[in-house]
Amino acid sequence: MGITETMLAARLYGPEDLRVDQIPHPGQPKKVGQVLLRVTAVGICGSDLHTYQDGRIGDTVIKQPMILGHEFGGIVETVGENAKDGNFMPLIPGTRVAVEPAQACGCCEMCKHGHPNLCNRLHFCGLFPDNGSLSHYMLIPGNTCYPVPDHIDNAGAALLEPLGVGIHAIDLAKIRVANSVAIIGAGAIGLYILQLARLSGADPIFISDKLDWRLDYAKKYGAITINCDKEDPVEIVQKATNGRGVDIAVEAAWGDSSVQQAAEMTRLGGKLILVGIPGSDQMTLKHSTLRRRGLTICMARRSKHTYPRAIELATSDKIDLTGIISHRFQLKEAPEAFGMNLAYNNGVIKVIIEI
Amino acid sequence: MGITETMLAARLYGPEDLRVDQIPHPGQPKKVGQVLLRVTAVGICGSDLHTYQDGRIGDTVIKQPMILGHEFGGIVETVGENAKDGNFMPLIPGTRVAVEPAQACGCCEMCKHGHPNLCNRLHFCGLFPDNGSLSHYMLIPGNTCYPVPDHIDNAGAALLEPLGVGIHAIDLAKIRVANSVAIIGAGAIGLYILQLARLSGADPIFISDKLDWRLDYAKKYGAITINCDKEDPVEIVQKATNGRGVDIAVEAAWGDSSVQQAAEMTRLGGKLILVGIPGSDQMTLKHSTLRRRGLTICMARRSKHTYPRAIELATSDKIDLTGIISHRFQLKEAPEAFGMNLAYNNGVIKVIIEI
Amino acid sequence: MGITETMLAARLYGPEDLRVDQIPHPGQPKKVGQVLLRVTAVGICGSDLHTYQDGRIGDTVIKQPMILGHEFGGIVETVGENAKDGNFMPLIPGTRVAVEPAQACGCCEMCKHGHPNLCNRLHFCGLFPDNGSLSHYMLIPGNTCYPVPDHIDNAGAALLEPLGVGIHAIDLAKIRVANSVAIIGAGAIGLYILQLARLSGADPIFISDKLDWRLDYAKKYGAITINCDKEDPVEIVQKATNGRGVDIAVEAAWGDSSVQQAAEMTRLGGKLILVGIPGSDQMTLKHSTLRRRGLTICMARRSKHTYPRAIELATSDKIDLTGIISHRFQLKEAPEAFGMNLAYNNGVIKVIIEI
Amino acid sequence: MGITETMLAARLYGPEDLRVDQIPHPGQPKKVGQVLLRVTAVGICGSDLHTYQDGRIGDTVIKQPMILGHEFGGIVETVGENAKDGNFMPLIPGTRVAVEPAQACGCCEMCKHGHPNLCNRLHFCGLFPDNGSLSHYMLIPGNTCYPVPDHIDNAGAALLEPLGVGIHAIDLAKIRVANSVAIIGAGAIGLYILQLARLSGADPIFISDKLDWRLDYAKKYGAITINCDKEDPVEIVQKATNGRGVDIAVEAAWGDSSVQQAAEMTRLGGKLILVGIPGSDQMTLKHSTLRRRGLTICMARRSKHTYPRAIELATSDKIDLTGIISHRFQLKEAPEAFGMNLAYNNGVIKVIIEI
Repeated sequence: MGITETMLAARLYGPEDLRVDQIPHPGQPKKVGQVLLRVTAVGICGSDLHTYQDGRIGDTVIKQPMILGHEFGGIVETVGENAKDGNFMPLIPGTRVAVEPAQACGCCEMCKHGHPNLCNRLHFCGLFPDNGSLSHYMLIPGNTCYPVPDHIDNAGAALLEPLGVGIHAIDLAKIRVANSVAIIGAGAIGLYILQLARLSGADPIFISDKLDWRLDYAKKYGAITINCDKEDPVEIVQKATNGRGVDIAVEAAWGDSSVQQAAEMTRLGGKLILVGIPGSDQMTLKHSTLRRRGLTICMARRSKHTYPRAIELATSDKIDLTGIISHRFQLKEAPEAFGMNLAYNNGVIKVIIEI
Repeated sequence: MGITETMLAARLYGPEDLRVDQIPHPGQPKKVGQVLLRVTAVGICGSDLHTYQDGRIGDTVIKQPMILGHEFGGIVETVGENAKDGNFMPLIPGTRVAVEPAQACGCCEMCKHGHPNLCNRLHFCGLFPDNGSLSHYMLIPGNTCYPVPDHIDNAGAALLEPLGVGIHAIDLAKIRVANSVAIIGAGAIGLYILQLARLSGADPIFISDKLDWRLDYAKKYGAITINCDKEDPVEIVQKATNGRGVDIAVEAAWGDSSVQQAAEMTRLGGKLILVGIPGSDQMTLKHSTLRRRGLTICMARRSKHTYPRAIELATSDKIDLTGIISHRFQLKEAPEAFGMNLAYNNGVIKVIIEI
Repeated sequence: MGITETMLAARLYGPEDLRVDQIPHPGQPKKVGQVLLRVTAVGICGSDLHTYQDGRIGDTVIKQPMILGHEFGGIVETVGENAKDGNFMPLIPGTRVAVEPAQACGCCEMCKHGHPNLCNRLHFCGLFPDNGSLSHYMLIPGNTCYPVPDHIDNAGAALLEPLGVGIHAIDLAKIRVANSVAIIGAGAIGLYILQLARLSGADPIFISDKLDWRLDYAKKYGAITINCDKEDPVEIVQKATNGRGVDIAVEAAWGDSSVQQAAEMTRLGGKLILVGIPGSDQMTLKHSTLRRRGLTICMARRSKHTYPRAIELATSDKIDLTGIISHRFQLKEAPEAFGMNLAYNNGVIKVIIEI
Repeated sequence: MGITETMLAARLYGPEDLRVDQIPHPGQPKKVGQVLLRVTAVGICGSDLHTYQDGRIGDTVIKQPMILGHEFGGIVETVGENAKDGNFMPLIPGTRVAVEPAQACGCCEMCKHGHPNLCNRLHFCGLFPDNGSLSHYMLIPGNTCYPVPDHIDNAGAALLEPLGVGIHAIDLAKIRVANSVAIIGAGAIGLYILQLARLSGADPIFISDKLDWRLDYAKKYGAITINCDKEDPVEIVQKATNGRGVDIAVEAAWGDSSVQQAAEMTRLGGKLILVGIPGSDQMTLKHSTLRRRGLTICMARRSKHTYPRAIELATSDKIDLTGIISHRFQLKEAPEAFGMNLAYNNGVIKVIIEI
């Protein structure tokens, strides 16, 4: 395919205005270490929906049509000079890979200290002004590519990204066997965190959500489920633990009051992990809830160093990677996919767009 | 002195209603391990002022006249059966001691795991319904007493308690040499934390307050001072650190907005220690400030295991224990002492009541 | 049963001289919090075998006939004044309990800081001069008793002690999901650690031993097994991990050279947990192996705070508690049980003496 | 100076055979990010002496004449394309810099996780086959250069490397205020660690050595000194701490038995940091000493991320950087400098070669 050709891409023009356009092909790798990727599958994430709905995410406003999508995998089409993968091995055209959307600078204090997820010079596929993956082809740095075995299919390769977000949150939680855990929110991230908590030896694990179909997935993964529209999650957790509370609570929802709720579920000296991005940026907490329990609160920001481990877990079937996929669409149907996803009905958990 | 005699005690009857009463002497030790203490000095703490002002602290309402005071030392007058001190050594009448006001149960999960500061069966001198130390005599468990050398005077013995609060906060901060630190609030606790941060090798150390006389103390202890009524502390800290922020921020003020301020001073991946008890229990924070920085937030609750180390630091003059004393009163003058302290003028830092 | 009656007990008189004697019944509880326990089952541990074989363990020489046995459970027969269990709940006669053999002082620095396993005033059942549990009755502190549900049988109650040793080792290892682990030694402790590592999300897990029947158990629990008499464990682990080594290596054998071996299996920056007690106290290591890898080495000493979690894991069948029992004997057969165990043949893993 | 010119360099030909040769100038920067450095001062380190004495260090044998020296600073003479310093700022000719001798790969697991000190693809100036700094000029990567202020002189710039080794060791020690520390070995590294421990709030600090002139330096820095040829350091430390031992022991000597000695000084649950490289690689320890204390042992390997902090500490005079310099030589006198240093008399602590 020549560099004069065109390709399809799903671009956001403004709030709830996503269009599938014919745009120029990105061309061949030009920079050292770069590769041309043929995208095979893209997952839709909660932050994509934030952006789709508002035409912005936080302070970052979409100022010109931008390709969305940061959960993705593909096939390496051509490779630039000296292209190596994320494991520092040479990349060969034809390799199926999962792609880390975050391109950290590698040189700042955070990168050098092992925290590329906190790099503030980083580029992130699908975060304005950087285009995402809802297109046929992309040029990306080779070292953001991680080869995947046949056991992980195209959709699975895309989902290693949200699994990585879950792994990072669970790393922060430092679960010990027989620790009790409560998770607020049974979306894709919440369900991965549930699986990872269980894999870490946590027991019991509580999870709350207001959507019953999500809780059905959670039941399958071994959680004690709570519909927070029908029951008080704090009361249930406190009762089930004889008033002790859980060792670790993880907030993985969009809700504004769920952080306070998570805190009230946590035992004296326990830990609170915040993963979800609330609709409103203003978070109101009772100081005394946190103080009297002597809590430690960890903010989980993106993920770091998770691809090799995520691949290991999916390959050995320790984690059900693709079982949370509820819907599949084609690239041309991207607007329908986003619209349906936002509606929050039809039993949506994770939507995959196949390309 | 016989058990039929009386003694003076400063008791709180309701908001701003403190009276010095003649009350019955507590008598001789009755329980195993108990001692009769002759109190020599008591410090007034911010939480005492909260209680004095409101007749309550948090949910805990004073329902009958209660003796205030939890920062104190004294002389062991008589000892009960098998009385041992906090170092598990036999206690001898006549020993000058500092007293840990928290009497943890020793048997619950938190106590057994080494966190008596989080014990929720604990009794705390001066927290309703337990009487405090503003009286001539008290009966207390021997194992809350720590002998002090001559180098630490009576007021110093009382001040080992707030110094311990500072040590606990600094323990949570896990400072490494050349870490930068910002402290919000230059009251007694803030000034001890400043000294301890400096002793831990922190450099530079910023401290903000709205009262210039407090900042004068802070200057003496080597801090870069910021009057937050005249300057923007976040702007100054960010500018002085070239936009990086500090490794660790400690909130040790009464203010409601100071936690958000502390967060904005902290570097990517940094740590936030919350020591202060705000006037209002509702704390409003920007989620994005915490999340994007990937912060860890530690709630400092009381103190634990700090007496031996506090004594070591004061004895070797590594910490200026009594230099923060601004005013001294007699027990009879307790109401004046509290009133003056609450007024927040006259250069008050730490008020000591000598008994 | 009156206090003048006698009972059977298995006492060690010297190296390999164990006799089942008729001795006085211990009588009724005399101290506050004490209980009279009717022992139901006792496990034989490697350290019991050390003591049996040498008439001593380390510096501690058996100077007079002593009852062996520290892995045990029983039924509370009668209770002394104010007897509470390890969860601080009142104890009722008839309760089936597992018993923590270590009776820490509760007052020293280690105890107060949450490390009763390092208390150096502690009494330990079956460690000279304190009698162990190979008898019909014992007087023990109530707070060393933990009630067990019906799901855990008598032998299982006894085995919560070695499971706790495994939990403590795994706590020190701080395993994260998808971490690789190597275990040296597939005895009872090694097999529990294997199960716990797997429960913690470790993958892969290697285990080496020279006895094939032990490795058969290990295979059942999901490990990659290595017979170290036939193959070089270091070579196999390094090859299987592409020369990287494992994240965590655990030494749980009697061997003198196995610590060096474990170190050579560990990755750069990895962690080494030492649980086993070698036959010879002299341990020879290559400094460069440890230094160049920048290892952290943790000594696992006994266990702490593990009973509630061990009970939780056994009750929910997360751990196969009794599956490692290879032989069962009656109290009268204790000499045969020890002799057989020491011989290290007949497929022995864990020997239980039922009482 | 043209690239055809020659320069002086001190090269090692074999055991104790160091010659000052006229060799070709390295020429101008050729690679992206490279700089030409005019060396100004080089410190001699214990590992240099190991290499000088044996013609090898560990397994690494000098197979051809090699320039020694890894503690150094200099002036940037010319810069290659896009040369940036270690803080990711553009490098300007004429800048005085300290140089990190370790050139980590930046791509391996250890580098990405923030542990470049454990990179096993790293190049290290002065470690065969990479030339060191005892020459007039060198070509080095710009990002190993850290600009130093005027307050740090040329010798000081060279000594930021060993100071960094001390900082890394102290980071591992995680000292809290009023922790007690014992250091074995009062050489340059030991004396920096002493200063850093004191700066971290440690108190008391013990240090042992067999050379009185070293102990004189240690006294100046506030330590309790022990001549281990005249007194038993374990006995003195245990007695001074009432049999408790120190919280942290640091081995920073060449001795084979000093690790065991350090372990015997350490309290229950304490920490042992191993920095020194013993003469013999075989280290013999008593397993029971480590086990019964439940110690954690950390191997300090080189240093990481220490230059910015080392510069901060030296600039603010928190550390006496150059006070340990006992002798100064010119490049031509390098053989005499090494010979004298090896002799271990004349009060040698740190030898600087000025260029």
